[in-house]
Order: sequence, then structure tokens, then C-alpha cells
Amino acid sequence: MIVVMEQGSTEEQLQQVIDKLVSLDFTIHRSTGVIHTVLGGVGPREVDPEEFLVMPGVRECHRVVAPYKLASRPFRAEGTVVRFGDVEVGGTAVTLMAGPCCVESELQIRESAGIAAQAGARFLRASAFKPRTSPYSFQGLGEQGLRLLRAAADEHKLLVVSEISDHTQIATMEKYVDLLQVGARSMQNFTLLRELGRASRPVLLKRGLAATVEELLMSAEYILSGGNYNVILCERGIRSFASATRETMDIAAVPAVKKLSHLPILADPSHGTGRRDKVAPMARAAVAAGADGLLIEVHPDPDHALSDGPQSLYAGQLMELVGQLRLIAQAIGRTL
Amino acid sequence: MIVVMEQGSTEEQLQQVIDKLVSLDFTIHRSTGVIHTVLGGVGPREVDPEEFLVMPGVRECHRVVAPYKLASRPFRAEGTVVRFGDVEVGGTAVTLMAGPCCVESELQIRESAGIAAQAGARFLRASAFKPRTSPYSFQGLGEQGLRLLRAAADEHKLLVVSEISDHTQIATMEKYVDLLQVGARSMQNFTLLRELGRASRPVLLKRGLAATVEELLMSAEYILSGGNYNVILCERGIRSFASATRETMDIAAVPAVKKLSHLPILADPSHGTGRRDKVAPMARAAVAAGADGLLIEVHPDPDHALSDGPQSLYAGQLMELVGQLRLIAQAIGRTL
Amino acid sequence: MIVVMEQGSTEEQLQQVIDKLVSLDFTIHRSTGVIHTVLGGVGPREVDPEEFLVMPGVRECHRVVAPYKLASRPFRAEGTVVRFGDVEVGGTAVTLMAGPCCVESELQIRESAGIAAQAGARFLRASAFKPRTSPYSFQGLGEQGLRLLRAAADEHKLLVVSEISDHTQIATMEKYVDLLQVGARSMQNFTLLRELGRASRPVLLKRGLAATVEELLMSAEYILSGGNYNVILCERGIRSFASATRETMDIAAVPAVKKLSHLPILADPSHGTGRRDKVAPMARAAVAAGADGLLIEVHPDPDHALSDGPQSLYAGQLMELVGQLRLIAQAIGRTL
Amino acid sequence: MIVVMEQGSTEEQLQQVIDKLVSLDFTIHRSTGVIHTVLGGVGPREVDPEEFLVMPGVRECHRVVAPYKLASRPFRAEGTVVRFGDVEVGGTAVTLMAGPCCVESELQIRESAGIAAQAGARFLRASAFKPRTSPYSFQGLGEQGLRLLRAAADEHKLLVVSEISDHTQIATMEKYVDLLQVGARSMQNFTLLRELGRASRPVLLKRGLAATVEELLMSAEYILSGGNYNVILCERGIRSFASATRETMDIAAVPAVKKLSHLPILADPSHGTGRRDKVAPMARAAVAAGADGLLIEVHPDPDHALSDGPQSLYAGQLMELVGQLRLIAQAIGRTL
Repeated sequence: MIVVMEQGSTEEQLQQVIDKLVSLDFTIHRSTGVIHTVLGGVGPREVDPEEFLVMPGVRECHRVVAPYKLASRPFRAEGTVVRFGDVEVGGTAVTLMAGPCCVESELQIRESAGIAAQAGARFLRASAFKPRTSPYSFQGLGEQGLRLLRAAADEHKLLVVSEISDHTQIATMEKYVDLLQVGARSMQNFTLLRELGRASRPVLLKRGLAATVEELLMSAEYILSGGNYNVILCERGIRSFASATRETMDIAAVPAVKKLSHLPILADPSHGTGRRDKVAPMARAAVAAGADGLLIEVHPDPDHALSDGPQSLYAGQLMELVGQLRLIAQAIGRTL
Repeated sequence: MIVVMEQGSTEEQLQQVIDKLVSLDFTIHRSTGVIHTVLGGVGPREVDPEEFLVMPGVRECHRVVAPYKLASRPFRAEGTVVRFGDVEVGGTAVTLMAGPCCVESELQIRESAGIAAQAGARFLRASAFKPRTSPYSFQGLGEQGLRLLRAAADEHKLLVVSEISDHTQIATMEKYVDLLQVGARSMQNFTLLRELGRASRPVLLKRGLAATVEELLMSAEYILSGGNYNVILCERGIRSFASATRETMDIAAVPAVKKLSHLPILADPSHGTGRRDKVAPMARAAVAAGADGLLIEVHPDPDHALSDGPQSLYAGQLMELVGQLRLIAQAIGRTL
Repeated sequence: MIVVMEQGSTEEQLQQVIDKLVSLDFTIHRSTGVIHTVLGGVGPREVDPEEFLVMPGVRECHRVVAPYKLASRPFRAEGTVVRFGDVEVGGTAVTLMAGPCCVESELQIRESAGIAAQAGARFLRASAFKPRTSPYSFQGLGEQGLRLLRAAADEHKLLVVSEISDHTQIATMEKYVDLLQVGARSMQNFTLLRELGRASRPVLLKRGLAATVEELLMSAEYILSGGNYNVILCERGIRSFASATRETMDIAAVPAVKKLSHLPILADPSHGTGRRDKVAPMARAAVAAGADGLLIEVHPDPDHALSDGPQSLYAGQLMELVGQLRLIAQAIGRTL
Repeated sequence: MIVVMEQGSTEEQLQQVIDKLVSLDFTIHRSTGVIHTVLGGVGPREVDPEEFLVMPGVRECHRVVAPYKLASRPFRAEGTVVRFGDVEVGGTAVTLMAGPCCVESELQIRESAGIAAQAGARFLRASAFKPRTSPYSFQGLGEQGLRLLRAAADEHKLLVVSEISDHTQIATMEKYVDLLQVGARSMQNFTLLRELGRASRPVLLKRGLAATVEELLMSAEYILSGGNYNVILCERGIRSFASATRETMDIAAVPAVKKLSHLPILADPSHGTGRRDKVAPMARAAVAAGADGLLIEVHPDPDHALSDGPQSLYAGQLMELVGQLRLIAQAIGRTL
């Protein structure tokens, strides 16, 4: 914790800050400059900088240490590789996860699995419990959907990733799913995160639309601190004023996470853009920037999809994209 | 649904759009201008504009009707007043809800209730189940906190508002709480919203940090469509690049909600700014802009609060603020 | 300048940072904590924190002193009052500046001046050189417009504020205008700012749509450092994802500027919202939050205005609003 | 122009809208649905949707046609290639423009030119007139800088791109510079844009930090409408709440511009990120997403650069990056 006093602040005000730091068990280092006095405090626990910012005579206050520990790069400097049998996320290979937004029917998910497998995906993605902005939209098939999803994936030797929207679904999900996806809107559902810390499956944690990279890592910390160290992050777009795509993909978050954390990070250009014609450019951009994998929506018949049709690729588009991604991965010393 | 074709789009492309509208049971109106052909479709259900935006030859697509119905102003043009005995939210009076961030101890909450009552608040606010960004922060006293909260409120004839963070808490909360608060991070926890549609208590729904006004109203629609018509909204700041306060309070959302919806709307200047010295100006601004009430943090000893101390007012500051608010309310024909 | 070293950074990396600070003539204070080493440097000039952030072993770097000096509150702790004869901006009175977007004709500006005067405005506002987003829009009447503007203002003993969009207009503008307005899009037109530092008239500097409060103060610093100390700031909305109004008015910038700087600050709810029905609520909010004045568009016939008609008030609306503003000003110990 | 009436709006309100459309010479098409009445108007000129939004009984208003014409894709469907002798921008080849932020000395710019040429750049970039946020920062060498820049570029057969910050610099700049760069802060300096419409050199127009893609194209329209059809656009980051990099690069703007406009678009990962370690990932991302070229800062001695040192690559880093970019360009059928 570093506290910078105002020019012209009084010795009494300074003493109040020192008293507060002492009461929090901080060791204090004082630097008196020509203009400003700076206090550096090293302490045993997290304190909100605003605790000091509201004190009289204080100009600025900075937190020195990031509030996440287990998610920080130094905790595992070599980087985390999440393993699913012989499939790795976070290693040299770029991992493709593909499939429709939702499980709609046995035929649809089986065809989707076929497309995903043919394109080289290692995971089949689809939701059975689907959080929707409108209460009047299709909400998913529930456990029956998970069953169809698992069967379709098994047929093509694919792993399964699917969204969990509430902690009461964990036991059911674990029966069918290899990777539990936490959606952007649930990134700060702390009850869910805490329970996932005790889950037996790895977790795919998507960045919230208003979340900073630091907040994403704090949410990961919830899961890690519960004992589940297999967490994969995912960039899927943030809210900004820019309106050419549904969200603004913050591609720079990929190298930023790589520097701050040891956890793998994927990108989801389907939700990040909301429009089919932007998915391929942004998928290429994410891999070029260093993403460890992609989550892409593909549908055997996007024009009749029950949800997210406009952002789902046609099978042929996915094949063409994967060809390009393979070359881009090679350009930076990776495989796909 | 209005679809505008590209300049130079073909008759075949136009026919595809018409076919799609027909397949969705839309009645179609066609306008052929010098440059653009425009199709207007009136249909029985919600369709995502992006369904059409990705079709060849389509330039623009606009949804004509807002996707919320029960939350929209025409549904109850005279406005909703939520009643708690003789206390009203959404009527002529501006309603004050005050209290500490969390219940910390019997003494602390009793003192807080005394301050709130003295300041003219009708509700005592405090959390017993506290969602925190960091897993290492104080998380609340749970049901014991609710018990203390209820007792302290009763002593001063105050109503109780407290945050619910998971649907499994509903039954417990309903025993102690008059108004169930959904925090900004839970605004799109659809499992929770759906269950609150069946709750016996009114709901205070806070706007998410990345939520548009339309999305806020869609989340309200979840609760209303479950049969619980007593919903109160709350503006508490959005994420923007501006860094002078923790969030950016979108004060203009107050008159915007008033125009689009019949539901009452409060403002929370404590969370919206994160700093004590900005709370009073923003509280005054919100009332001046037409807010139906305020949610304000006050603490008997902010310097030793277990959470949110820096944004909690001192008792004396609240008294002074209420004096100003009373005059501002009068200036626009309201009371406080 | 405060530099925080990474956990596990080497002594050699630390030495490189020290060498760099020394080469920049900084005096260094070192604090070695259990986890992090922190260096505090006090130096003679501004250095970009990113200079250190890119060095190996550096975790964080914070600039201690704001890069503006003349615009900072300690430079003139009592606050600046800009005087125009007996009219003051920044004193106890809240100053109203009203008028149409553009001078369109002699009749229109004379009628506007009458409305402004009747409403209690001290300044007549209107543009003669109008920057427009589209090259095909009406661009203003030029010097002839200024002449009409001056005459209309004089008739009602009003002062004149008008927008300057290029430094070559200064000499012409100074003949007719009491207060030179720099629009949001010109806030970082540094050539213009520098020349205004030598102008004989006070300057009204509007915040850019993407500018932080610090950047606004840096732009003010350009003018102040040229010797023109009569600078008035203005909040007029920033860009965010929120779409209920054209821009998002950052009302909290008003108290933020008051704390950081001695310069007066106005608000412009007409440009800040873009819609007539939001102007009154946001005008009231700005005054309630402590703004020193308002810039409001009013037009004798908004439905036929050549620009900004939708955000211009009708005369009657302005009268009603001023009545409310007067009471709100009183509520916080000011006059209008 | 499409106007949607409120549910429950009156026939009289509808007639007022029709009257206004007629007064603006619009041809009207009326569609009466079960819930809403929709008016489509095709007219001879641009009208602001807010003109209708403020009318009683109006729910929504959408502008059908984008307000730019010459910059729109249909105007030149095959795409614009800007030619500089045998160098093309907007063709199959991805064009590299590299160099330091500013011309500092003859030695520095000559060394920079050598690095740029060796890396395969076709343009040497550097500023001689440098707009700076702080009045106390280095502001450039002026015409002497341009002379040094030209000589250094000629030595290595490079073209020159340099920033223009005011219209009075045009004649001087044209003597030395092949491509006139308009910086992000000047994107809406309409006086400058209009004069550049008459300039004899192509223009590189950077997107402003708060500008939508539509506003960028409107600014291009200013230049095109003056007769200068050689305009190249550039994405360099927008303002958002995300703080991991200085700005948020909106990589999706690249394919968005490609769809809406015929003009070439570059990306500037140096200004877009502000940090050296993020430049290479974002440069790769931009090329992968389809950018027609890159503007990259490189400096012979970044640690002692007079400006932007932290975002300037070392020579070796640029060479390594270009090797990767070449492979990525090939992956999507382009060269570099």
C-alpha cells in the first residue's frame, strides 16, 4: 500500500495515516520529497485503497500487490496445462472447441459433432441449460440435452464442454461433461464459483462484459482457493461504445493474461462479435495474439437454429477457417 | 421488424428475406424507394435482428418492439407504486433507505438503525449474505445477521432491505426481510430472477455494470412474468473509461426508465461512486433528476467498518444531506 | 514516481531501475518488504510510468504527482472566479448561458436573446462557425453570424459565448465574443489551445467525449501556461455503452473537478443528452451536484431549427426549468 | 427514415409526423400493424432521427441510409488501392510503415530508416510536428525534422508518412511527405479535413478514441468530398474501461470497415497498446483479421527516446515480428 500525501498536508494528517497503517499491522517506510510525502506500507492483508483515499490530506493511494495470489503468474511461473487424457489446454497445441449454441435434438447434435470432429476440434460445445436475456426465449433441453450431447461426443471421440448456470446443477453436469463452462453473466456468481472450487471437473471461466482482467483473475481465485486448480479462462468481448459488433473483443487481454497469470486463455469470437462474418477474422486474430484455443459456434443448419443462429458458422466456413488457423499457429511456433 | 436492403441487392436476395419473414409468420409490408427497398414485418414473436443482418443483400435490420412487455410503460401507464403498509415507493414521496454495507454486530446495526431513523429513512439496509470480489474478504454473518437486522429495524419501526445472492436463500430471507435486493452482479442470474418471480416479497433490482436500460427491463420482465409485480429498479453506476469515481453513475437512466417503464427507480450513490465525498453531490443529483428514492450507506464508525467504509457517510453527513434533499424534492413537487 | 518490483525480480533488474531513475535526476527511496521491493523517486520532471513498466522485473509503476500544475487546486486553493464586469463565473451564483445551437437569422437570434434574458441567463450562446460531423450539414453564418449575435445580446445586456473551431478565427472572434468556447472535438487541438493562451478573452473548455478529468485539466494547462488564466471547464457527456441518451453525462466529474482543480465547471445537458425531454432532469442534476453554471440550448422554434432542434428547449420549458433550478441552488447555499 | 409510433399513439400524432416528413420532401409508406404503426420515408437529404424521436407518440426512429456516400462500399465496390509509384496500399500486399515516434536527430532518423528498410517497410514514419497531451513535453523539430526525415527515407528508398496537426502546415508538409497522417485527436478537426480534401497528397486518417466506425467514415467523407480520393484509414484503439493496455484495440473494426467502405484500413498496435510487449501480439492479430498494413514504432535506442519509448520496438524485435507476419499474411492469401 502506497499513500501519497497532498502538497500542503499537515503533520497531523500524516500521523493519522500512519496510525491507520499501524492499526492494520503494516510496516511503514516514509519518503519525504520536496513536494510530497510518500508512505509505503507492507502488511499482512488486503486493504482497499479507498480506505486511505477518503482521509484528509491524502492525494493518492495505490495497492502494491495484486489481490489474487493463486491465479498469479509467479505462483506457477511455467504456466498451467489442463489435461483431459491426451488432450491438453495450455500447451503447445491450440485447442478447438466447436458446436452449436444449444442442444436442440439428437439429429442436430450428432451432425454438429460430426462437423466439429471433421474440423479437428477436441471438444464438442453446446448448452443444455441456457441462460437467456429474455424469459420468453428457448431455455434448453436440460438433462436430456446433456445425455444427447455426451452420446454425440462419444461417437466422435470428442470431449464435452457445456455451460453451468447454477450451483445446483453441478452433480448432474459432472455425469456428462468434461469441462464446466461458467458464462460471462455468471463470472461473479460467487456461490457458483465457490462450489466449483470443490467440483471434480475443470472449469472454463468466461470474462464478464464489464470485468477487468484483474476481476477475471479474482473470480478464478475463488475456484482455485477451493482446491480446483484446473481453470481455463476465456475472452469473449467487453461492453464499449463501439457498435460495429455486438461486443468489443479485447484481444489484448490474451497477452495481458499470459503475463499476469499462469492459467490458459481461450477466445470466443462467436459471442464476442455476434455476427457470422466477423467470426473468422476474430478467430484468426485471437490465435495470432497467442490464445490457447477457441470456442466457436457451428451448426448444421444455422438458418434454423433455435438460438444464436446468426453467429454460427456453416460447416464449410469452419473447415476453411481451420485451414487458415493451422498456418497462423505455425507462424508462432504452435500447432492446431 | 424492419429490414433495409442494400443498394444493388438482387430480387432473389429480397425474396429470401421475404421467405424468412413468412416462415416466422410475419405479415409483410414492402416499400421500394429510389435507393433502398424496405420491408416491414409484424409478427407474433421476438426475432433477433441479427437473424436478418447476416443474410446477403441486407443492410440494416431494426426491431420495432422492445422485447419486454410487462415492464413497459404502456402496460401500466399510470406508474407502479410498491406499497409496504403505509410506506410507498414510486409515489410522490422520495424514499430513503440507509444503513451500513454489512451487519457486523448487534451494537453496530442497532446504532445504524438509530441513525437511519433519525435521518428520516423508511428502510434499514444491510447485507447478511455479502458477495465479495475477493474470496479472502469478509462474507457476512448469514442468518444470524438477518436476525440482528430485523430486530434493529423493528426497534425503530423501519422496514428491512437486504441483498439476496442465491435462490436457495429465498425462504430464509423472506422470514426477516421486506424487500429483497438483487445486486448488480446478479442482475442476469436468471435462475434467481425466475425464483423471485414466485417470491412473496417485493424485489429491488440493481442495474448491472454492463447492462443497458433495456437489459435491466428485460431482467425485471423475468420477475414480473413469474407473477411478482412488485419490482423496484436501481441505478448504481456503469463501467466506462472515466476514472474519477469507481463507476460512472448514469443519472440520465433515471428519466430514461421513467419514460420506458412504469416501475419505480432508485439510485445508489454509495456504490455508484465508491467515495464518501462524492456521495452527497450524486445523491442530490439523482433526486433532482427524478429518482423515487435513494439507497445510501451510513455507518456509526466508517473508519472501522468491515466493508465499504470509504463510501459510508458519517451520521452527521447524512443528516446534512437529508436537509438538502428535502429542499430539492420540493423544488420538483415531491416530498421527503 | 513509484516503482514496484516483481516478486522474484533480481538484484540486477532492481539496479537497472535505480540507474534509470538516477539518470533522470531522481532522488531515490527504497523500501524492501517481505514480498516486494518498492522504489520511490522524486524528480525534477514528468516521466511516463510506461518507461518503467516495460523494464524487466517491474510489476507496477505509479506517477505520484499529477502532470498539471497551474490547473491544480493547490495552485489557487480558494478557487478561480472568472469576471465579466459584474457577472461572475465560479462564485456563489450559478450562471446560466442559453441560446440556440447556431445563429440562423437576425430574427431568430433576437428572439432567442429575448428568451434567454427573460429566463435570467447572463450569456447568450450560439455558434457562427459550426463544426459538423457531416460535410453536408449547415456549417454556420461566419462573421455575419457573430455580428447578429453581438447585436442581439447587446439589446438585452447579455454577454456572448460562441464556439471557436480554429486558431485563425481568434482575432475575428475577439471582436464580438466575451467567452471563447472550445468544443469537445477540439479539446485536444493543441495548436488552438496554445494560441488561446495568448488570447484576450476567457475560454470555455469542453471535455472531450473520450477524455478523462485529468486530460481535461491537461488541456486547461495548455491555456493557463500561455498566460490566460481565465479558463472555465464544462462537462458535456462521455462515450459509454449506455444508449438511452446520445452521450453519458458524467455528473460525478463536477465534484471531481472541484476537488482536483480551482477552475469553475459548467454542465451542458443539451449536448450531453441530445434529447429535449432529458435536458431538464440533467440540468437539475448538474446544479444539485455543484456545477457553477449551465449551457442550455433554447430556440424560438425548435421544430424548424437548422441544427440541434431535438435537443433545444421551447421557451416555456426553459422558464419552468429555471424556477426549479433556483430552488435547487438555494438548497445548497447558492443563488441563480 | 423509419418512424415507429407508440402503442396507443393518436391519429393526430401520426398526422404530425406525416406532415413533418412531407415538409422535408419525403415520400411516405405507411404500414399499420396490430400493435404499432410504422412510417417509412424516402427523402432527398439527411435528417437527424432525433428530429422525430422528440415528437409526441413516436417510439423509435431509424435512419435507413448511412450518412456517408463517397466513403461507402457501394461507391467503389471493388475497393480502393492507393498508389505511391510501385507501392500500393489496399492491394494484396500488406504494407509496413515503421519508424520512431518523432524525428529527434539526424543520426537517430537515419538509423531508424535503416532498421525500417531492413525489416521490409515501404514507409518511414516519424513526426516533426508532435501534438502532446502536456504543454511541457517535447513537441518536435518542425520543418528541420521533415528535412531530416525525407533525407533518411530517400537514402533507403522509403516513402514518408508524418503527422499533420494543423491546416497551416499543409504546404510545408507536402514538400517532404508522401502520406499526410491525421492523428486520432484530430479526426474531427473539420477545418483540417476540409483543407486536406484539396491537398495533393494521400491522407492517413486515424480513428479517434471515442469515434464509432460510422464517424470515422464521416470524417473520411470530408476529405473525399473535397476531391481527394486517396484516403487510408487506421484503427489505433478506443477508450473503454479495460485497463490492461492504454487503449482497447477494436480489431473487429478492420472487417467492419472492409464491409462498409472501399477504403483501405491499417492498424497501429504501438499507440493502440502503449506497451512494447503487447505490440507484436496485436500486430499479428490485426494482419490476421485482414488489415491492409501496419504502422509500428521502432527506435534504434528506445530506452533513450524523447517520446513513446515504452511502446517502441527494438530493431531485433521488429525483424522477428515481420517474419511471423509474413507467414500470417500467407495464411490468408496475402503477401508482406
